[in-house]
Amino acid sequence: MGKNPGPMPDVRPANTRLDEFGLIDRYFRPLATEAGAFGLTDDAALIDGPGRDEIVVSSDMVVEGVHFFPDDTPGSVARKALRVNLSDLAAKGAEPSGYLLSLALPASWTENWVARFCRGLKGDQTTYGLSLLGGDTVRSPWGTMISIVALGRLPRGRAVLRSGARPGDAVFVTGTIGDAALGLLVRRGEISSGEAGRGAGRLVDRYLHPRPRVDLALTLRRHASAALDISDGLWADLAHLCAASGVGADIDVRKIPLSRPALRLVKADGSRLATVITGGDDYEILATVDAKRAARFEREARAARVPVTRIGQIVTGATGPTFFAGEGRKLQLSRTGHTHF
Amino acid sequence: MGKNPGPMPDVRPANTRLDEFGLIDRYFRPLATEAGAFGLTDDAALIDGPGRDEIVVSSDMVVEGVHFFPDDTPGSVARKALRVNLSDLAAKGAEPSGYLLSLALPASWTENWVARFCRGLKGDQTTYGLSLLGGDTVRSPWGTMISIVALGRLPRGRAVLRSGARPGDAVFVTGTIGDAALGLLVRRGEISSGEAGRGAGRLVDRYLHPRPRVDLALTLRRHASAALDISDGLWADLAHLCAASGVGADIDVRKIPLSRPALRLVKADGSRLATVITGGDDYEILATVDAKRAARFEREARAARVPVTRIGQIVTGATGPTFFAGEGRKLQLSRTGHTHF
Repeated sequence: MGKNPGPMPDVRPANTRLDEFGLIDRYFRPLATEAGAFGLTDDAALIDGPGRDEIVVSSDMVVEGVHFFPDDTPGSVARKALRVNLSDLAAKGAEPSGYLLSLALPASWTENWVARFCRGLKGDQTTYGLSLLGGDTVRSPWGTMISIVALGRLPRGRAVLRSGARPGDAVFVTGTIGDAALGLLVRRGEISSGEAGRGAGRLVDRYLHPRPRVDLALTLRRHASAALDISDGLWADLAHLCAASGVGADIDVRKIPLSRPALRLVKADGSRLATVITGGDDYEILATVDAKRAARFEREARAARVPVTRIGQIVTGATGPTFFAGEGRKLQLSRTGHTHF
Repeated sequence: MGKNPGPMPDVRPANTRLDEFGLIDRYFRPLATEAGAFGLTDDAALIDGPGRDEIVVSSDMVVEGVHFFPDDTPGSVARKALRVNLSDLAAKGAEPSGYLLSLALPASWTENWVARFCRGLKGDQTTYGLSLLGGDTVRSPWGTMISIVALGRLPRGRAVLRSGARPGDAVFVTGTIGDAALGLLVRRGEISSGEAGRGAGRLVDRYLHPRPRVDLALTLRRHASAALDISDGLWADLAHLCAASGVGADIDVRKIPLSRPALRLVKADGSRLATVITGGDDYEILATVDAKRAARFEREARAARVPVTRIGQIVTGATGPTFFAGEGRKLQLSRTGHTHF
């Protein structure tokens, strides 16, 4: 419960002081009585599966005007709605098998929109090897809403939780960080395409089309002590992992992998480093690995064609993450996370 | 895919001729490649479960202003959202075990609303013996939307499908039919509380609070050849069952069980019989049972404290349902169903 793809600026309700996490903590956590729900502290739930398998279940809703723009192409919306769930499954070490789709369409829906939406789903079904299992189609008096529940499988007891990080573990991320958050600024016109240069399209594409790291699932369940996917931002999600594991993490900011267009934008304006670290929507994997296994983890990730970068290590003390900018200098950021609620 | 709780008058988009079923047929069915998805022709999907079990998965979304009124109490909204799913599971013969909740809340949400919503869920969790497994909380730029996926279990190969009805089978319904549809008319003021009399509250309650026939699950999977829950209306759902089974059904309208307040309203205005038969939101079970097992089915249902009434029989020929009003007179209705899309 909790994490979500999200593009728009936060609009916090004025009439309450509870944020999403407070709401979950106070009202929803007491309802999660099954052990496999992990008290809603993880990204997915586990239920008993066939033979020696467990079924991993992930649920994410995307809402027009909150998580996607009304003029995003239907295929992009479909892929984003599906992939944010596949990203959760991958982080737990599970391969996806199927999904349920609930789709609320406004009165102005067109058959053309639905046809293109379904083509987007079909393409991803082929890419990731899964089937639509069921769902629901309803009318929305407003905009489009899509709720997807994705199911994956893995051997019993092998799910990679948030809570397994231990002091001394190496901290890894996949791919590059911050592209989607910068892409959103380009999409919103807050960074001009001119300034973003030839990389602008790539950054926007990272925002529109998460790449779930499904190919890393097996490697993660072999070697990772803890993992989650980065949706709320590197800082916030590392804080979630540290809180669940009761540890701290020292991160070397200079090691955080940036794409070429992201690096150029950060060099031009250093304040964008905060966007990279807190912006969200990366849908890369953050994983901790016993230092003795780190080399094997890197080797297997490379064999799976998933780039991984070691950016720091887990330390003693439930202090959460500390980001070092070099020479022991701690990075001070004004925002520690991105919330999609 | 398809069925849904729904109160408001249909508003069909003007720009298309496809209805919900056409949409599913053309665009979503081709995506349902897994056998357990039944080509989206059933109310739930089956996936492999532990040991000798299968897991039954049902998905239903309810939307403010479409499936519930903005001033319905949060507890009622919660119970309806959950119970329409439990009703699907029961019709398949499965006992519920858990659910995932995706909740989109408008900026005007209050902690009080959420607290009462969760109290509604908690009460039903206790009643029906299930746990929240996970989900997602997001912001809605408009009203409240709730998407629930419920999971249930049953022995492998024992799910009761829509497609198993055979000529000669007896047709049964649980409880009474039409209360919720008449209750909605009361709720909307189209039938005055005065006319509905002392039964008005009961009718509205039937509309607000479906009673999923969870206690009949075991009896259904022992004896029913086909079943579904009545959400789109007796006529439409019987037509779905007949279509999936390739059969017809002769129904004796005089045998359709009506509650006392419903009977009084129909006697006062015979046109309300159409509302009873086509109105939807009953969340009773429609089941077919081999005639030789009918007596045992009735006995076991009685032992499970679920009232069942035999209203007709399955006949040869894929002709769908025929409603007889007595002396071989066929009932002519102008609406054959209720759609919530």
